Amino acid sequence: MKHEQLIDLVEQMTLPEKIGQLQQLTGDFFIDRETAITGPMKEYGLDENLLHQAGSVLGLSGAADLIEVQKNYIEKSRLGIPLLFMADIIHGYRTIFPIPLGLACSWNPELVEKTAQVAAKESAVSGLHVTFSPMVDLVRDPRWGRVMESTGEDPYLNQLYGKAFVNGYQGKDLTNDHERIAACVKHFAGYGAPEGGREYNTVDISEWEFRDFYLPAYAEAIQAGSKLVMTAFNILEGIPATANKKLMRDILRKELKFNGVLISDWAAIKELIPHGVAANEADAAELAIEAGVDIEMMTFCYHHFLKELAEEGLIEQGLIDEAVLRILELKNDLGLFENPYRGADEQKEAEVVYSEEHQQTALKAAEESIVLLKNNGSLPLKIEDKIAVIGPVANSTDLLGNWSWKGDRSETQTLTSALSIYYPHLLEAQGCGVLDGSPTQLEEALEIAKNADKIILALGESADMVGEGASVTNLQLPECQLNLLNEISKLNKTIVLVLINGRPLDLSDVSEKCDAILEAWFPGSKGAEAVANILVGNTVPQGKLTMSFPRNIGQIPVYYNAFNTGRPTELLGTEGRYISKYVDVPNTPLFPFGFGLSYTSFDYQDLQLSSKEMKMENGEITASVTIRNTGNHDGVETVQWYIRDLVGKVVRPVKELKGFEKIHLKKNESKQITFTITTDQLTYIHSDFKKTIEPGEFILMVGGDSENILQERLSLVL
Amino acid sequence: MKHEQLIDLVEQMTLPEKIGQLQQLTGDFFIDRETAITGPMKEYGLDENLLHQAGSVLGLSGAADLIEVQKNYIEKSRLGIPLLFMADIIHGYRTIFPIPLGLACSWNPELVEKTAQVAAKESAVSGLHVTFSPMVDLVRDPRWGRVMESTGEDPYLNQLYGKAFVNGYQGKDLTNDHERIAACVKHFAGYGAPEGGREYNTVDISEWEFRDFYLPAYAEAIQAGSKLVMTAFNILEGIPATANKKLMRDILRKELKFNGVLISDWAAIKELIPHGVAANEADAAELAIEAGVDIEMMTFCYHHFLKELAEEGLIEQGLIDEAVLRILELKNDLGLFENPYRGADEQKEAEVVYSEEHQQTALKAAEESIVLLKNNGSLPLKIEDKIAVIGPVANSTDLLGNWSWKGDRSETQTLTSALSIYYPHLLEAQGCGVLDGSPTQLEEALEIAKNADKIILALGESADMVGEGASVTNLQLPECQLNLLNEISKLNKTIVLVLINGRPLDLSDVSEKCDAILEAWFPGSKGAEAVANILVGNTVPQGKLTMSFPRNIGQIPVYYNAFNTGRPTELLGTEGRYISKYVDVPNTPLFPFGFGLSYTSFDYQDLQLSSKEMKMENGEITASVTIRNTGNHDGVETVQWYIRDLVGKVVRPVKELKGFEKIHLKKNESKQITFTITTDQLTYIHSDFKKTIEPGEFILMVGGDSENILQERLSLVL
Repeated sequence: MKHEQLIDLVEQMTLPEKIGQLQQLTGDFFIDRETAITGPMKEYGLDENLLHQAGSVLGLSGAADLIEVQKNYIEKSRLGIPLLFMADIIHGYRTIFPIPLGLACSWNPELVEKTAQVAAKESAVSGLHVTFSPMVDLVRDPRWGRVMESTGEDPYLNQLYGKAFVNGYQGKDLTNDHERIAACVKHFAGYGAPEGGREYNTVDISEWEFRDFYLPAYAEAIQAGSKLVMTAFNILEGIPATANKKLMRDILRKELKFNGVLISDWAAIKELIPHGVAANEADAAELAIEAGVDIEMMTFCYHHFLKELAEEGLIEQGLIDEAVLRILELKNDLGLFENPYRGADEQKEAEVVYSEEHQQTALKAAEESIVLLKNNGSLPLKIEDKIAVIGPVANSTDLLGNWSWKGDRSETQTLTSALSIYYPHLLEAQGCGVLDGSPTQLEEALEIAKNADKIILALGESADMVGEGASVTNLQLPECQLNLLNEISKLNKTIVLVLINGRPLDLSDVSEKCDAILEAWFPGSKGAEAVANILVGNTVPQGKLTMSFPRNIGQIPVYYNAFNTGRPTELLGTEGRYISKYVDVPNTPLFPFGFGLSYTSFDYQDLQLSSKEMKMENGEITASVTIRNTGNHDGVETVQWYIRDLVGKVVRPVKELKGFEKIHLKKNESKQITFTITTDQLTYIHSDFKKTIEPGEFILMVGGDSENILQERLSLVL
Repeated sequence: MKHEQLIDLVEQMTLPEKIGQLQQLTGDFFIDRETAITGPMKEYGLDENLLHQAGSVLGLSGAADLIEVQKNYIEKSRLGIPLLFMADIIHGYRTIFPIPLGLACSWNPELVEKTAQVAAKESAVSGLHVTFSPMVDLVRDPRWGRVMESTGEDPYLNQLYGKAFVNGYQGKDLTNDHERIAACVKHFAGYGAPEGGREYNTVDISEWEFRDFYLPAYAEAIQAGSKLVMTAFNILEGIPATANKKLMRDILRKELKFNGVLISDWAAIKELIPHGVAANEADAAELAIEAGVDIEMMTFCYHHFLKELAEEGLIEQGLIDEAVLRILELKNDLGLFENPYRGADEQKEAEVVYSEEHQQTALKAAEESIVLLKNNGSLPLKIEDKIAVIGPVANSTDLLGNWSWKGDRSETQTLTSALSIYYPHLLEAQGCGVLDGSPTQLEEALEIAKNADKIILALGESADMVGEGASVTNLQLPECQLNLLNEISKLNKTIVLVLINGRPLDLSDVSEKCDAILEAWFPGSKGAEAVANILVGNTVPQGKLTMSFPRNIGQIPVYYNAFNTGRPTELLGTEGRYISKYVDVPNTPLFPFGFGLSYTSFDYQDLQLSSKEMKMENGEITASVTIRNTGNHDGVETVQWYIRDLVGKVVRPVKELKGFEKIHLKKNESKQITFTITTDQLTYIHSDFKKTIEPGEFILMVGGDSENILQERLSLVL
């Protein structure tokens, strides 16, 4: 449909029809219409017409169902406007990939794009049109449960991943490529910085820091063409995002030029009341529509009050028209006016969903996401090792992680079953549950352990211990699991810890008791196979952390791209009193950003710059470094380039990731890697919020993580 | 001297003489001039003339010495400009009062003013002119060691205390009243909010939140006439305070109309280099003088580079003149041109310092500062109780706390000695040291404990475990002390815990094992006597916390005047998942703001408003409440009035302290207390940073702490 036709269509619509488009309902309203009418419709005070006027549906899937729902809807819709089907497809539809925090550790945006494409394909043939992904919220606090859904603490990586997700979901021609779906960047903005890591809590960030660290990933994903943006639950500068005109009108619409659909998060419009900026639903509706929120998710402030507000002249009706038009444009961009069923196809669904090819992508994604945090030489396992697998997640299929709605645990292998392919006589014991254990379980595990040479201790969190609403004040493993580790460590056997979890944990004590630690995250549908492949050495680990692991919870926030302060340990050491430090632990994390071991080792040498000086105007110089595989395995290394601006008009981080390259190196092989530095990489947000630059000294750094680095100075000159 | 004469004086000065005035040196340069010249003067590259050109001295005291230093200085000073003597007199000179965080718990600004007056008098007769106090930095994070020097988490209390300190130090006529000294409000601004509670770390606060919570106390203390302001070490919006023109020129000078002397914190000008906004000392000097920093403390960027910068036209010489004039005005305001020795008087010093009268004030301050956190009836002690005093601080004189430079521990009683007046046959044992203990110590303590009915367990921190540079990641008592408590608790004796410490601690486990807890802070010179008086019931405890005590370190920050969020437990309970809460602990603190028990109990009843409606224009209504002493002791209660604005243009705290009254109530006595609500109390900082107001609904609350409250609604109407 042409743009003019959409405008015509809006003109033909009655005010209730328009307001209907702005409403999102859950699927249960449509699947059992009669129950909905007598139940929730009544309860919420909803007009029955809403069932053929609501613009979009949340949380339904399956080609057969969605074709039927669409059919019934269009038949009753006066103007035949199709419904939009949206859902939370976060790290895969039924083929589940590692959680985003794990995926990020692959340092492989192409792979992440591929996972998003697979998720889009499975979703599209199952009838979906929109996913509420990617979440590009920068996070520094592992107490926040939703950290699992983020890609970490780095603005640059978050940008790359945001873009990769959007491209993977949407492809290049959403209108005609019906194996793609629309993306929804969330949560605009700053949702990843709740105070104390407490879910939905107050966010307070200065506008300068917001623009320097938080805004870039949203901007990049919007730039990549994301069709939707979701509002954040939190306040910014005292105003909830969902009512924040400065944020939504000035920054999102004008500055970032976003002209897609802005959707509220679940109930976020009505929640303007407890936030204390709206006295009632009418106020909330007014604030949200004025901020430019197009769709209200599962509360009914628009439905109940927009008509009255418009008729009484309290809001301009143009605000409603503009929101409707954006929603119709989205439907049109998805090709729904031409084909309201779009990709939904039962036969394709049967072929495509969880296909062998998709499973292979899941396996690859899991293998690249897993991070080897410690290894004293006990990994890879030897085929002659006498192995016991012990722990509450050893024989669990709870490897998919939160936000894996359509994932099927019955299709998921356990670590034990995956390992038993290599070790048919594997010993096994549970030891304890995730949260509780019995003395009998412990004794049994100790007996089993005594008969093994190496113990694979599989510990961690259950899926529901992370994700939305799962903020914690303790980052250690549950007491019973620590106890299991303690008791086993007394046997003086080799302990290889495999962690299944969704957030950076406090591993300080744990690390001392283990010979090796493999951070597997929630690795998804093929996670068990990936872990087994790495443990036995079929695959060499290559993941690198994108979020720092703290030494303890009292050290939070700890992140690599911090400012130097006026009294840094770097300058003053750690011995004196009047230094920016803690008395009881170092400032550094236990495992830093960018860190991850391999079975082989890499040596960095010969960092050279094409020039020590770079011109302000269109300047460009190249840096090169030679990396050699100095160990006994072929391997993959992620070469990381960081830059520090030594003097700015505002303070600058001690390092900022500016580029990276994943390279394969055979045993003894070496490669020279080059990196191009442009002036663009040296710009930063000044006090006037402009991104500019001035002459001065910089340090270029390169290494395999954010702490072990070679460095060279360079000057930016007029 | 008249203002015109000061201007003339500036005109007579050479540029090096002017720049000299901007330099602050430590006392050692003046006490042993020859050593200074051959030692530090050479080392820092200082001009020898600086010893009679430097404008001020830091950290010397004693009438005899200061008279001599002043005499020698003026003799060599070409224009006879007297030296300024400054020092850190934070909670008393030699008569040491409780640490500020303790003093604040008195909820008695008049008493705090009195302590400041005593400190000023002792300082003045000892030759001092300026103290680097008060610190009015709002703090929410007990990891920060310097929390001891703050008055807590509440903007309103911090305002009252800031003003009280300034009035106490300065009196009404600083020029003629030579028993007063000048105050220096610090640290401008935001120093109390370092990230992670780590000393000197990055501060990031939105300007809106900064103005709503942090700025008011500085503003109030400046309004009270504080002669000096000290710059903070931290950045705000990316620029170190010491170089922050917006903060210092626009906010401090223009908006707050501060025209006194702005002094850098120790080395803060040179630290602009590690902060990364200055490439070298010349840059640092330029940035600081442009921001309007008048005095450089103990680095030499001004001394080394201001002359060159002025001569080369890189800065206007007027900036130097203006700084010099402000310093001369301060000297003149202190009456130093007429009498450069001012209050310094050896005879008075002998009479006044640590006088009996001052000690009585210290005793009263300590008694009002101590907070009874728990009491199951074991306090007050009975005279027939068989008492053992056990613990590392039982027999320690380390009760003065950090920042008690001139305090004399040899004059300080121990808890044991103070209690033995009442219990001549007191049993005693150390049990362990503050940080370490031996099995022998523990066994001995357990033996002693077995022979007692009630055990006074005296635990806590040593003075150097808090204060500047003492940030921690663990808020529990040291391991050996917890162990001592654990072992003693197994004896099933009554345990009364007396805490000597300087920050809100995590007392969750401790609290369960004790029958009573008395938070004594570092109570100062007469602290032991105050604790004993309260334990035996000679004095009824009355202190109320001004900072929340967290349930654990993972819950930080926890403070009473938080915003409601969109999904508060208040509305949604604590059972569901999608609520702003932690999974593992409640959102509430262990001990809330405003909390403190008495030996008696108080009942609040009959909250009434003179009207439920209040006019926008000059509106005023009164509230009244009746409080009855329902227990068995006469007692003191602090009646606290809080207001909540239910709907704002920006979010508002769930409650804000707006007033309080300390009342004495005899057994069974009741009093009606009234509180006047004016529109001024209902204004708040809007998005445009203006403090305004609009009609709407409010809740007025009254109670004995911030959680147990009566409430009434009121409307603000046009």
